[in-house]
Amino acid sequence: MAERAIRVGLVGLGTIGTGVVRALQSHGALIAERLGFPLELARIADVDLERERGVDLGGYRLSRDWREIVDDPSIDLIVELVGGTGVARELVLAALDAGKHVVTANKALLAKHGREVFALAAAKGSEIAFEASVGGTIPVLRALREGLCADRVLALHGIVNGTCNYILTEMEATGEPYEACLKRAQDLGYAEADPSSDIDGIDSANKLSILAGLAFGVYLAPTAFPIEGIRHIVPADIEYASRIGFRVKLLSVAKRNAHGIQARVHPTMIPRKSVLAGVDGSMNAIEVRGELSGPTLYYGAGAGAAPTASAVLADLMELARARRSGASGRVPPFGTPEPGMAALCAPGDQRGEFYVRFTAHDSPGVLSRITGALGARGISIASVLQEERHESRAVPIVITTHESRQADLDAALGEIARMREVVAPAQSIRIEREL
Amino acid sequence: MAERAIRVGLVGLGTIGTGVVRALQSHGALIAERLGFPLELARIADVDLERERGVDLGGYRLSRDWREIVDDPSIDLIVELVGGTGVARELVLAALDAGKHVVTANKALLAKHGREVFALAAAKGSEIAFEASVGGTIPVLRALREGLCADRVLALHGIVNGTCNYILTEMEATGEPYEACLKRAQDLGYAEADPSSDIDGIDSANKLSILAGLAFGVYLAPTAFPIEGIRHIVPADIEYASRIGFRVKLLSVAKRNAHGIQARVHPTMIPRKSVLAGVDGSMNAIEVRGELSGPTLYYGAGAGAAPTASAVLADLMELARARRSGASGRVPPFGTPEPGMAALCAPGDQRGEFYVRFTAHDSPGVLSRITGALGARGISIASVLQEERHESRAVPIVITTHESRQADLDAALGEIARMREVVAPAQSIRIEREL
Repeated sequence: MAERAIRVGLVGLGTIGTGVVRALQSHGALIAERLGFPLELARIADVDLERERGVDLGGYRLSRDWREIVDDPSIDLIVELVGGTGVARELVLAALDAGKHVVTANKALLAKHGREVFALAAAKGSEIAFEASVGGTIPVLRALREGLCADRVLALHGIVNGTCNYILTEMEATGEPYEACLKRAQDLGYAEADPSSDIDGIDSANKLSILAGLAFGVYLAPTAFPIEGIRHIVPADIEYASRIGFRVKLLSVAKRNAHGIQARVHPTMIPRKSVLAGVDGSMNAIEVRGELSGPTLYYGAGAGAAPTASAVLADLMELARARRSGASGRVPPFGTPEPGMAALCAPGDQRGEFYVRFTAHDSPGVLSRITGALGARGISIASVLQEERHESRAVPIVITTHESRQADLDAALGEIARMREVVAPAQSIRIEREL
Repeated sequence: MAERAIRVGLVGLGTIGTGVVRALQSHGALIAERLGFPLELARIADVDLERERGVDLGGYRLSRDWREIVDDPSIDLIVELVGGTGVARELVLAALDAGKHVVTANKALLAKHGREVFALAAAKGSEIAFEASVGGTIPVLRALREGLCADRVLALHGIVNGTCNYILTEMEATGEPYEACLKRAQDLGYAEADPSSDIDGIDSANKLSILAGLAFGVYLAPTAFPIEGIRHIVPADIEYASRIGFRVKLLSVAKRNAHGIQARVHPTMIPRKSVLAGVDGSMNAIEVRGELSGPTLYYGAGAGAAPTASAVLADLMELARARRSGASGRVPPFGTPEPGMAALCAPGDQRGEFYVRFTAHDSPGVLSRITGALGARGISIASVLQEERHESRAVPIVITTHESRQADLDAALGEIARMREVVAPAQSIRIEREL
């Protein structure tokens, strides 16, 4: 314990940053014992140093300007918890350029500027660790990078947004509509005042970009894949899902098959008995299917100050060891490109099974015309659910399909929308059966 | 790719050994790409070189004597897949002594001779990796050692024996007794001809010794904790569990609390809605509860040639990187002892809630005498289930308790067994509610 401490500079004293300070206060001695040397939180920067955060900042040198910390040659490691892609990008690049190792929880930054950040880290021999950016406390990036490093990943299905998972869980448990459950999530602090980044799938897409990068060794920009949120999910869909043995979850999906790499974010019906379907409330889980390993799943808290701090500190310990031993680049942060990796599939070429709910007047022949429009595009039907017949008013017609191309389905739905008997836009939800 | 290969010697060509050979043939190019140099399987030893294994051994130098491989200075890494604690111990010690890094899947060896093996590795600067020894393909040891390294583990609950989990899942699905489900497991290759090491909890105890070692930084001999298998579980218990919202799983449990460390293996009733309860068939999962991280769970195939080979190869890659860089001891294999770690709780002092099923003639006052015997030892009752009254024949009386000391329960059950109305030994099963 006589060894010199590794000195850490923390930028950003929001919820996570404050959690990291608190965790280092409570677990610093344990960490020092395990590392063989102390991890010393030496400097902290935040634009707001006045706000009461319920944590004792007396022992730290505080700054308003992050540059003072990045420029301090006595600081070994930088923790970026500013968030966003502006100041965060600037400070991460500056820290890597200065030869410092960096820990970040910033998925938006990595999804948008990953190429630039990783290239600079490689050029400078600096390390960047980002376990907390996906799945909060869950060490899923380590699992992909090291635990499954001998294997080829075939598919990955993740519940990586706790806000959406909480809302969908509540909708199923209470039968209440989306808006009421979002309100409850906001009251409980599971959703922000402006929830759009979570609700519309942006956050899940950023995390998928990182997960797919690790799984396939390629950078996939989140702007390149289809993203669908949960605003349009209604209780009826959750109920129909239940009746055919499924639950609805917002999934981040990445797969490879003969058609290339598919990557997408959307509400998904998954088998009720699957382990992933049992992930409730604000919890996260990622299932990975490998050629050798088969399915593995990683579950835990996707957010929260203490769980996320645990992941940030584990990264700090790894980089502190690297800094102390002088060895860097042990494992590349994104693995390495696989030879012969296929290209990302265009959105319209992505394939899968679908649940489609039509709302139509049940005049004679309507089912035949709808199924005819699907069949004409090669979409074959797995099941039909049409319960009551009310010639005079609109009724739901629920159809599930076998594997189909997205573009074919879209074309068929376009044609069906123009049918006289059809009174509302069709609701289509992906089905992922192999879970 | 011009870099010299790291040369691997494999000892033991059973199911896993053959799986490793096959996986290196199918995934060797990918592994070389990721490492930046090839991992070359140079030599193989097995006492039986004649048996047809369905894999091409043409390219390897074969030996009957493992010593030839351990003594070969050109071999960098040794993979021990012999099993057992005789030859395996000798060869692992010899390899570490020769300065070679070792990969093993041998839980019995590590549970029994862990101290000796890890001490020698540390003394020689050799590394030993053993991800495949617990949870097959699941990178749970990496998660404990690195993913959760900043955290203090409070509790760990694992389904780590696929044979038992398959049998319990089948008993619940079919209502058939243990013997019939064991027979089916044997027919399907999920259970061995002599299943006692699995069925009696020995295998789960060996794995718990390793998991608890990583979780708490202490070596716990499996002989020091209570071990109970699944032979005595009858369909009625599974059915009663279901009626009170639980499922029965064989769990490896390690916890710390004010009473010290508790470690034990036993059939356990866990809440039906918990993620762990959804782990069916031969799959494995380990839930870890940390101070900061909260619950995390790791799920996957606990056995099978390809899944286990994936874990062995991931370890080989880690040790190949260490060998290539010359850096060893980056992370101690068992973490480091925690300062102030409490001692292992004596079996009788271990605490928990219990389900107890009595079989008694339902004469007036029997329930009062049974609950009286429990109450006299401070065991408080959470629920009672007694459905039908047949004064003339024996009926089941099912009681669940609040947290109690094992020794108190044992004493009460001893007294109750001597009661005139009680016609069969009581069946007690642990309840773990916090999952």
